[in-house]
Amino acid sequence: MKTLTVGLGCRSYPIYIGSDLIHSSMLYTTHIKGLDVAIVTNETVAPLYLAQVRQVLSDYNVIEVVLPDGEQWKTLETVNRIFDHLLAARHTRTTTLVALGGGVVGDMTGFAAACYQRGVDFIQVPTTLLSQVDSSIGGKTGVNHPLGKNMIGAFHQPACVIADIATLNTLPDNDLSAGLAEVIKYGLICDSDFYEWLQINMASILDRKPELLSKIVIRSCQRKAEIVADDEKELGRRVILNLGHTFGHAIEAWQGYGQWRHGEAVAVGMVMSADLSARLGWLDQQEVEQLVVLLESARLPVSPPVGMSADEFLSLMRVDKKVLDGTLRLVLLKRIGDATVTSEFSGKCLDQTLAKFIC
Amino acid sequence: MKTLTVGLGCRSYPIYIGSDLIHSSMLYTTHIKGLDVAIVTNETVAPLYLAQVRQVLSDYNVIEVVLPDGEQWKTLETVNRIFDHLLAARHTRTTTLVALGGGVVGDMTGFAAACYQRGVDFIQVPTTLLSQVDSSIGGKTGVNHPLGKNMIGAFHQPACVIADIATLNTLPDNDLSAGLAEVIKYGLICDSDFYEWLQINMASILDRKPELLSKIVIRSCQRKAEIVADDEKELGRRVILNLGHTFGHAIEAWQGYGQWRHGEAVAVGMVMSADLSARLGWLDQQEVEQLVVLLESARLPVSPPVGMSADEFLSLMRVDKKVLDGTLRLVLLKRIGDATVTSEFSGKCLDQTLAKFIC
Repeated sequence: MKTLTVGLGCRSYPIYIGSDLIHSSMLYTTHIKGLDVAIVTNETVAPLYLAQVRQVLSDYNVIEVVLPDGEQWKTLETVNRIFDHLLAARHTRTTTLVALGGGVVGDMTGFAAACYQRGVDFIQVPTTLLSQVDSSIGGKTGVNHPLGKNMIGAFHQPACVIADIATLNTLPDNDLSAGLAEVIKYGLICDSDFYEWLQINMASILDRKPELLSKIVIRSCQRKAEIVADDEKELGRRVILNLGHTFGHAIEAWQGYGQWRHGEAVAVGMVMSADLSARLGWLDQQEVEQLVVLLESARLPVSPPVGMSADEFLSLMRVDKKVLDGTLRLVLLKRIGDATVTSEFSGKCLDQTLAKFIC
Repeated sequence: MKTLTVGLGCRSYPIYIGSDLIHSSMLYTTHIKGLDVAIVTNETVAPLYLAQVRQVLSDYNVIEVVLPDGEQWKTLETVNRIFDHLLAARHTRTTTLVALGGGVVGDMTGFAAACYQRGVDFIQVPTTLLSQVDSSIGGKTGVNHPLGKNMIGAFHQPACVIADIATLNTLPDNDLSAGLAEVIKYGLICDSDFYEWLQINMASILDRKPELLSKIVIRSCQRKAEIVADDEKELGRRVILNLGHTFGHAIEAWQGYGQWRHGEAVAVGMVMSADLSARLGWLDQQEVEQLVVLLESARLPVSPPVGMSADEFLSLMRVDKKVLDGTLRLVLLKRIGDATVTSEFSGKCLDQTLAKFIC
């Protein structure tokens, strides 16, 4: 087992990474202060892992909350169902919520923990690649609104993250690929060595070789932990973690949440961001093409859904949280391994990028 | 104008108290960082003050959100309406919310500010006595759940509080009385001199003499600011501000929110807390009777609604946020001007108190 730390002073917490950690009761009990525990999961993950986690926590008063599966359920109404269960069971401020599942479960459980009685503890037990390498770390919690993704939420750090690599064995291929989009993102924004390594090893990663899965989770978590420790509330550098997300969120909102996986939309967004970066003279066209090859080798889409217009892109992108007083800002690549947020791009270049990708 | 400060380090903020402050644009503009402002108010307050505040903020892009009036609307669904308006108008992280109204408007607007794009600024402009002396200060924000009051929320401090005493001239008598319950509370928990002064001056206060209204708002805000600065997140002493609230919340939940005013329920709760304190030998029976006289002189109820049983009280009180791992804790009075939170009371004494007040 590898233990990383997200260094945030009194809110610092460990990320445990390894195989079969889900059964290690000590990892949980170290971080549970009271007698009450609520395991929040979804219909897909519950049959696979809920009984096991419940067994490990048998010394506590445990309730289970099983939510429907899918990004379309990441709403205030679903979070309210978590509150219903907590209040019906009379859980108090000393309860601990356990988020067992992917990013949607983690985001909603974390937001419920942030708001229940004005804040209780929670533990992240991510069971997808995307949640292990990205969403379970850093304390961003929340839900979607019909007019924008993750528009309602809170910064609320978990007490710990238990990333069990073995749970990736039950992950559908499409979900593995969606997670790889965020893994590739770390290479693009801050780790060119890792990016090159991914170009060489993608085939073995898709074969789910345990030592490779372990490496990509550890390396990604290291990069994320460093960036979050630098800038917890995204007042500065943390924003580079949103590479591809402004285009990606527009795709997700246009399609209706739950149609494309988040990682798939981010993959397309990263290609579009790279294309715009090339138009600004920062990347070579060859580097953009290499990115397309890498994403395709990870079985990810590289162009937006058919039928989405440039105007629709622009309209939905303007709802982005990075917009400041009406000015659109985008995370772009100065080079491979170096990202920046900027509003210093001409509308003409952005229009050209959109025109290139509109089918 | 008197300016008090809530001392919370980088989250410190001023409370401005005086007459006709609502028209003083500088008080707002000092605390507004961006170009967008959303004024959130309700149907009752809007016709009285919305146009005036809008006029003062005419240099900004202002939207208005007018909510229904009443505690029964203090729900997640109503907060979602605020999000709808903010997103429809494309307000970003630099927006500032202005809560114009009483405690319900302030609690919901503050919670919306805490959660919109994971946190934006807000300004409290309390227009009721209760919100001026209590709920607008200290950063407690949130909504009710059918199973418990204020169960969903966040700590989110305002950028400033603008308490315009002149707005109390339009306050109905019952709402003035409801606010006086919280004023009397400060005397009971930490200011025996103020308590004696209130006993002498209650008639003049009810006549709304400006200098007396000004004094009770300033004195109450001073006490609240001191307690909040000591203990922002209610890990210790701040809990004494909940004197009477465990009984009171049970009454509000039993009746359905919006039937009794919050301050009315708190008044009854304070009498019941004083009665229990007397059974523990901490207060004289005479002091309990003097409290009843003072609350009655402020035109407040001193016994629970007819039909509410002891079992219903106990059941609803157990949902309280002060319950720790199943143990009920109550704020009680060691003496007039000195409150403590304790679970060290016999169930028998609590039963006797409940039996005395059940009709």
